[in-house]
Amino acid sequence: MFKLYGFAVSNYFNMVKLALLEKGLTFEEVTLYGNQSEEFLSISPRGKVPVLGVEQGFINETSAILDYLEESSVGKALLPHEPFARAQVRALVKEIELYIELPARIGYPQAFFGASISDALKAKCRAELLAGVATLKRHASFAPYVAGDSFSLADIYFLYSIDLACGVAKKLFDLDLLADFPAARELLLRLNQNPHVKRIAADKEAAMPAFVAMAQAKAKG
Amino acid sequence: MFKLYGFAVSNYFNMVKLALLEKGLTFEEVTLYGNQSEEFLSISPRGKVPVLGVEQGFINETSAILDYLEESSVGKALLPHEPFARAQVRALVKEIELYIELPARIGYPQAFFGASISDALKAKCRAELLAGVATLKRHASFAPYVAGDSFSLADIYFLYSIDLACGVAKKLFDLDLLADFPAARELLLRLNQNPHVKRIAADKEAAMPAFVAMAQAKAKG
Repeated sequence: MFKLYGFAVSNYFNMVKLALLEKGLTFEEVTLYGNQSEEFLSISPRGKVPVLGVEQGFINETSAILDYLEESSVGKALLPHEPFARAQVRALVKEIELYIELPARIGYPQAFFGASISDALKAKCRAELLAGVATLKRHASFAPYVAGDSFSLADIYFLYSIDLACGVAKKLFDLDLLADFPAARELLLRLNQNPHVKRIAADKEAAMPAFVAMAQAKAKG
Repeated sequence: MFKLYGFAVSNYFNMVKLALLEKGLTFEEVTLYGNQSEEFLSISPRGKVPVLGVEQGFINETSAILDYLEESSVGKALLPHEPFARAQVRALVKEIELYIELPARIGYPQAFFGASISDALKAKCRAELLAGVATLKRHASFAPYVAGDSFSLADIYFLYSIDLACGVAKKLFDLDLLADFPAARELLLRLNQNPHVKRIAADKEAAMPAFVAMAQAKAKG
């Protein structure tokens, strides 16, 4: 059985959790925040979650975990079999990660943690988020899923990146990133009806108070 | 035949080029700088290089291209076959990209382009680079290759990320990132003896004047 280490507020944790649920795999969740203890660094060399415990040891980095699940050929496929179609999904995943998820993080301190960021960083965050959404609009098909007619890893990355990006854009710039992107809004509505996605959302809500307490304790040093 | 779009000074272009050469695949290089023209955005949705032209169309994002070459099962394998070992190489690749290559980019404007960056960014660049190298030291085996006894994608990412990271650390902080990391230094020496790596280095040197002229013209607007 797999062990999934991390916490239910983490979007990357939730990406792996949704993949496991969609594949119908059995797993145990172990609540753990990223940290720099020697013990944790021995299983996650940069101290980050999620980590997947498997029979042979530990796998870190979300993309490596998702590829492992895919390449172990267990459960429902979340990538097309044909190499070119598979490459298009992989490119979409990478675009969402590099051009939407990562730029949104620039805004987190101000959007979610009561800190403030410099005007230069704010401008960078805004420009990169807009360019990231334009990239998705150009490449994704939304017919009806991100990469076409099947649910794939691109939908998992989309679901757990775009919500945070929209939150940052709204709070920092009073901007609706999906205002002229109805296909993306419709897919979000559809994905949010998925029972596994609902379960993950409920688990996130339940885990939020403990996460906030941890973050506040950390901020106080 | 493959077409590889990009330019010989780009480290990501060179990652794909080395993979193609190591696999013994025939390809044509098409010199092209990343740009935001509609024409280029139609084949690379964020306007970046490299892009690989294949029979069915175009593949963007270095990691998607490298996975495509691997999954098409053409030429020498650059990932282990067994899923857990494969996952460890993928995790190393991702660690090098996220924790060494990307943080080094924070320092590029000052290290390579005569601009200056804020003290806050400098501090972030330094802390992240040190943490990234510590991550590699923890996870990589260097026995003698990054992931063990075979040359893999992790070596390609290492080779074309650590040199730039070392350049940034030296110029900005007068710091030798590999001072107490002899295994990494030895592997770099070994990789630099590879005839394909030598060819790529020569091509980079030859392409440098045109790249500098382009960058200067761009800076002047």
